[in-house]
Parts: sequence; C-alpha cells; structure tokens
Amino acid sequence: MAPLRIHGLAMSTCTGRVLTTAIEKGAAYELQPVDLSTGAHKKPQFLALQPFGQIPVLEDEDEDLKIFESRAIARYIANKYETQGTPLYGKTLKDKAKVEQWLEVESQNYNPPISTVVAQLVFVPMRGGTPNMDVVNENLAKLEKVLDIYEEHLSKSEYLAGDFFSLADLSHIPYTHYLINIAKKGDVITSRKHVNEWWQKISSRPSWQKVVELASNK
Amino acid sequence: MAPLRIHGLAMSTCTGRVLTTAIEKGAAYELQPVDLSTGAHKKPQFLALQPFGQIPVLEDEDEDLKIFESRAIARYIANKYETQGTPLYGKTLKDKAKVEQWLEVESQNYNPPISTVVAQLVFVPMRGGTPNMDVVNENLAKLEKVLDIYEEHLSKSEYLAGDFFSLADLSHIPYTHYLINIAKKGDVITSRKHVNEWWQKISSRPSWQKVVELASNK
Ligand SMILES: N[C@@H](CCC(=O)N[C@@H](CS)C(=O)NCC(=O)O)C(=O)O
Ligand SMILES: N[C@@H](CCC(=O)N[C@@H](CS)C(=O)NCC(=O)O)C(=O)O
Repeated sequence: MAPLRIHGLAMSTCTGRVLTTAIEKGAAYELQPVDLSTGAHKKPQFLALQPFGQIPVLEDEDEDLKIFESRAIARYIANKYETQGTPLYGKTLKDKAKVEQWLEVESQNYNPPISTVVAQLVFVPMRGGTPNMDVVNENLAKLEKVLDIYEEHLSKSEYLAGDFFSLADLSHIPYTHYLINIAKKGDVITSRKHVNEWWQKISSRPSWQKVVELASNK
Repeated sequence: MAPLRIHGLAMSTCTGRVLTTAIEKGAAYELQPVDLSTGAHKKPQFLALQPFGQIPVLEDEDEDLKIFESRAIARYIANKYETQGTPLYGKTLKDKAKVEQWLEVESQNYNPPISTVVAQLVFVPMRGGTPNMDVVNENLAKLEKVLDIYEEHLSKSEYLAGDFFSLADLSHIPYTHYLINIAKKGDVITSRKHVNEWWQKISSRPSWQKVVELASNK
C-alpha cells in the first residue's frame, strides 16, 4: 500500500486529528506541508484539492482518492485499515453507532465553543489582534455546559463510546490540548474529576505524543 | 427485525433527516412524538435518552441500542440496512469516503449558516420574537459563499458524492426545504443553475415527499 499523503501541518488541530488516526491504525503516511503564512492554502493549486481553502487534505494513491474534511478523512482511515491497529470503531454495529454518536457530539456541541475560545486566545493574538473576552467567556460557559454532560457520562463509562478508546475520544484531543496547554484555560477540564481522568488517558497515548513531537519540530 | 422507534417530530429538521433515511432504506419505523411545546424534551425521562434535551433519538430493540444525533442515527440506519433500499453510501470504499466528505461539509459549512437563518426567520417569530436581520443577512452571505462552491462542484457532478444519490445529499434536504418553502429565502438556491437542478432532484424523492406529508398531518 502507498503511504497516505496528508497535506497539512502537524501543529494544526484538524491535521492533528488525521495524523493521530493514521498513527493509531499503523498506516504509513507522509506529511506534505502547506505554508499557511504565505497563503498557499488559498492558491489555485490547493483550492483544486480543497475548494474551501483549508487544511487538511488526504491523497491516497491506492484508491485514486483525494478527500478533505478532517473527520471524514479520519473515518476513511479507520475504515480502510479496519483490520490493523487500534479498533477505533470498536467491534460491533452497536459500538460503531455509539462512536458515531459521540463523534457527532464532538462536531456539533464540543467543537463550536472550544474552537471559538482557542481562536480568540491563540490565533487572534498570533496575528497581532486582541481577543474579544466577551466571546471567550460566552463560549467557555457553553463549553462548561457540555462538559457537565460529559462528566456525568464519564462517571459511568471509561471512554465516550464505552470501555474502549475510539475515534470519538481521539477527535477531542487536538482542540483540548490547545485549550489546556496554549490558551491556559484548562481548569474547565481539570476541575471535573471524570473528564480530567479521561483527558489524562487519551492525551497520553503514544499516537498523540508523536503528533506533539512533530508539531514542535515545525 | 423490530421497527426502529424514532422519538421526534416529522416537522423537525433533524427528525426529518432520520425519517428520510429510514424510508430510503425501506426500514420499518414508528414515530414516537415528543411534545416540544410542553417541554417534554427537557424532562428527566427524555434527558435519560438525550442528555442535551433535543430530538431526535433512536431506539433499536434488535441491538438493544439507544442513540441520538441525527447524522449518527442516519449513518447507523444506512449501515444496518446496507443490503436493502437505496445504497446511500454508494458501492466502494472510495464512494463512501466522498459521501463522508460531503456529509461533513454539510455539517461544518452548510448547516451553521442555513440553520441560523431558518431559526431567525421561522422559529424566532413562532415564539413571538422579531428576527435579527443583521444575523440573517450575515448568514445568508456565508451560505452564498458555500453555495458558490457547490455550484462549481455540481456543474461537474450529478450529486455531491458522484453520480448517485447519497446520505450527503439527503442530509441537506430538511433545512433547505425550510429555507425555500417557509422562510422564503430560496433565491440563493434557485438563482444557481446546478444547485437548483440538484435541489429539484433531491427534494422530489418519494422519501422526502412522505416526510412532508407526515409533517403536514401534525
Ligand atoms: N472542517 C474542516 C476545518 C478545517 C480548518 O479549519 N482548517 C484550518 C486549520 S485547523 C485552516 O486551514 N485554517 C486556515 C483558513 O481557514 O484559512 C476540517 O475539519 O477539516
Ligand atoms: N445536533 C443535533 C441537533 C438536534 C436539534 O437541534 N433538535 C432540535 C429540533 S430540530 C430540538 O430538539 N430543539 C429543541 C431544543 O434544542 O430545545 C442533531 O442533529 O440531532
């Protein structure tokens, strides 16, 4: 099998989701950097791969396939390499249904507030701007409501979809890492006993540690 | 096989996504109404099924399964009934990857602006409020940018994921119906030739027509 060609940057949250998935599945990959600082992602060559002008994009020569959207790429890798590496969808139809449920909770309920907080506190200052603290606080409050539901759920379940680490847990890692370690707003995580235990488990996986290492070399 | 029990309302957009999927797959289902007007979705009995207090929820006795999140439920139905009805994921691994890509585009790029416009123009007045037209116009502008990309893509592809009707197309139907037929802001769709042709095809499917009929009886 040809290595998966991942266009993106290890330090980007959405690329991190895809890289972590590839590593968990033991899939060979190569990272093709996209220089956001020179606007490479808005040039015709890249827009032909991703019309919205965002990273990541996956090219898989084996299937003559080019796809974008990090969660779609992650699902594709989990499907294609179903029989190797970590069983990221669990074992049964029911496991898979629960994984999809929590992947959607991440995408619909968790990602909107957390990505807004991280954008304000990390990406706005990077570009020389000043964070809008009303937006930060409003979204932290939304995130806390979501985390209250996670806390209750994780008091009865080791991981989100059951007693196994899945694509749903994995999908939460990149933005949560940014929130805690870069934006320094980790108290919403660490103040919740079961959410914190879950975070310690998922963030210490060798796959994610490898992505952190890749990101720090860039 | 036991009928799928769908907790929700045919007139709700997210329930409509699930019902249309069940009908396309020829899956037996029963609709269990949830009375949003009396706040049934915020009572403990319902919160035990859906901790965020939203419809729809699926119960499937065959698998002893209860799940929520409309796109996760739709994927589950498409998986479970893979061998019957419309092949909503296409035929190959590559087809499925493209379906997942466009399902994610719907969820990440299309749904946020369109659901905001519909909420302002339809749901706010239903509750006696006045729509915020700045919010409406800002989100219509965002939606138009997304639709420009769809127009270009649909000029080369009959449906979103290729030459077959898929879960990705289906997932766009409920909110687009509300935008055109209830909010009366359909010009963003009908003014784009290929988007309009695509909309005519997907909205005239018997599955969706059945959901419109169910909704009008409520
Ligand atoms: N829904 C997309 C979002 C991708 C995204 O937001 N990518 C960011 C980096 S994490 C990006 O390319 N930002 C540059 C831009 O939007 O101009 C996905 O999950 O792949
Ligand atoms: N992401 C959820 C959203 C569900 C949703 O927004 N449901 C609406 C009806 S379309 C609802 O229950 N609204 C009542 C409320 O949020 O209080 C899904 O796709 O199932």
